[in-house]
Amino acid sequence: MTYCVGIKLNQGLVLLSDTRTNAGVDNISKVKKLFTWQVPGERIISMMTAGNLAITQAVISEINERIEAPNPNEPTIFSAPTMFEVAQVVGDTMRKIQNRYGPGLAARNVDSGATILVAGQRVGGAPRLFLVYAAGNFIEATEDSPFFQLGEHKYGKPILDRVINVDTDIQDGVICALLSMDSTIRSNLTVGMPLDLAVIRTDSLEFEQIRRIEADDPKFFEFSNAWSNALREAFSEMRMMDV
Amino acid sequence: MTYCVGIKLNQGLVLLSDTRTNAGVDNISKVKKLFTWQVPGERIISMMTAGNLAITQAVISEINERIEAPNPNEPTIFSAPTMFEVAQVVGDTMRKIQNRYGPGLAARNVDSGATILVAGQRVGGAPRLFLVYAAGNFIEATEDSPFFQLGEHKYGKPILDRVINVDTDIQDGVICALLSMDSTIRSNLTVGMPLDLAVIRTDSLEFEQIRRIEADDPKFFEFSNAWSNALREAFSEMRMMDV
Repeated sequence: MTYCVGIKLNQGLVLLSDTRTNAGVDNISKVKKLFTWQVPGERIISMMTAGNLAITQAVISEINERIEAPNPNEPTIFSAPTMFEVAQVVGDTMRKIQNRYGPGLAARNVDSGATILVAGQRVGGAPRLFLVYAAGNFIEATEDSPFFQLGEHKYGKPILDRVINVDTDIQDGVICALLSMDSTIRSNLTVGMPLDLAVIRTDSLEFEQIRRIEADDPKFFEFSNAWSNALREAFSEMRMMDV
Repeated sequence: MTYCVGIKLNQGLVLLSDTRTNAGVDNISKVKKLFTWQVPGERIISMMTAGNLAITQAVISEINERIEAPNPNEPTIFSAPTMFEVAQVVGDTMRKIQNRYGPGLAARNVDSGATILVAGQRVGGAPRLFLVYAAGNFIEATEDSPFFQLGEHKYGKPILDRVINVDTDIQDGVICALLSMDSTIRSNLTVGMPLDLAVIRTDSLEFEQIRRIEADDPKFFEFSNAWSNALREAFSEMRMMDV
């Protein structure tokens, strides 16, 4: 399983992923699911992946290979003129990989399902966030739905629903993403530390943060404990209610 | 969909269910999922149901019909000498109903899946809580896992995980069950008001509460708002953390 959350705020983009991958509960390993690209001063892109690992790795590798050696008449994520077309490149690459392996996987009853969050900004454009499906089609985050989740989304959704709107401060967005992840890790063994975090402030065209948060990170441990205490206090206040 | 939560504490049993049932999102109605029985001073029983509605209604009806007209040599939930055997009666009734309708439903690709939480106490025994599966087998709540959830369990699980242990005060158990339900209702349209609540204090052999909480209940509205505010405050405290 996987848990990734991508948030598009007026102040910028927040991306957070776990790093656990598993084939059954008895075969668990660590894999990076958050990827970043940058053309200084021109564009900044980050993606997070979920689903069939061979599929998502092939999509990311293919995207990288085409940056080095573009196909004639096909844009790459570095040459696409808008973030919408970047998402189209990712979707087209997904379709290509699905066409290559999908039938063979289906014949073996293996799920080829995969999804990719694509976030970024081009100079002159706005920050945008897309969710690319296995068929290569995609949807975009809007004012009304400013975040997307991949994988095990339910445990961590209530806090996002309560806190996030497009006007949320970007640091609050980071805190909220981390709390959403914390709830998910506590409830689903197949979502696990370390975490990868990327923060892109609007119009900076730079990563304000690209961080790996390790399992033994003392700050995250304190953060997680502080949230437990804050929730317990919140719960205590509810004792005053007559329901 | 459905959301039910049953909690077994040292101080007693808390049961809370929603009342929404749906065949698709365009066919929603209201149905009672929490049922109660009492033999004054001798036994007190409550059940909550989830899954195929025809199956669970047939199980509850069969249980009630057998109380009135027992089969020879078969215990009823009123004659079973222990709560364990009450759960066995429920499981056996489930098997009987599944055997009757399961093959026909399977032939039509309809899921006959159903689960029932069975809670109660017999005089001289301890309060017990069981989760009966569609095959009639069942598990029991223990010190280490003092609550069971049916249906849409994920949204409402984090608060239970953080608050509930066997020593939790029973009124805190009620608050926690309501908060767990509140988070679930906010996130899943197929879980909805009104709610049914039953509270059985240990050794009282009485329902301390059997209540329907309607959608327009002003106390529950205030309670839900107060929790939103308490969570927002808890979130604000997290801004002080350096993560």
